Amino acid sequence: MTARIKARVHVMLKDGVLDPQGEAVRHALGTLGFSGVQSVRQGKVIELELDADGPDQARDEVKAMCEKLLANTVIEKYDIEIL
Amino acid sequence: MTARIKARVHVMLKDGVLDPQGEAVRHALGTLGFSGVQSVRQGKVIELELDADGPDQARDEVKAMCEKLLANTVIEKYDIEIL
Repeated sequence: MTARIKARVHVMLKDGVLDPQGEAVRHALGTLGFSGVQSVRQGKVIELELDADGPDQARDEVKAMCEKLLANTVIEKYDIEIL
Repeated sequence: MTARIKARVHVMLKDGVLDPQGEAVRHALGTLGFSGVQSVRQGKVIELELDADGPDQARDEVKAMCEKLLANTVIEKYDIEIL
């Protein structure tokens, strides 16, 4: 029996990869007076609703989506959460 | 005493607001054969490291950052997590 399952995927640049977008945010926060900010990394969050046979099957399917489309695994890491 | 605190902010479009980016991802997933996907919403995730006097003060500061810079509160909602 299929059920409607919600999943959340975080896609972030890998640790060694320069994040100019995060750096720009950090700089802008400094300009606005938030002086305590040490580092900023910015990524994507993707919330999906999908029909699957269960949480395990949903996780496998979302993993395949990440590998094929949602993340660029050369420079990005992803993290899947089934809600 | 100040401590180095990690925070994560999710910024998503509010529920009623059209999300063309998420819609494009949904369509692309369908094209790739992921037929069970019902809806996709895409947002931003921002990970910060900041110096603050404690978790409560950190949360207040991150909230101010969201209101001033990180989110457009007319069309976006945000959610703060202190890690």
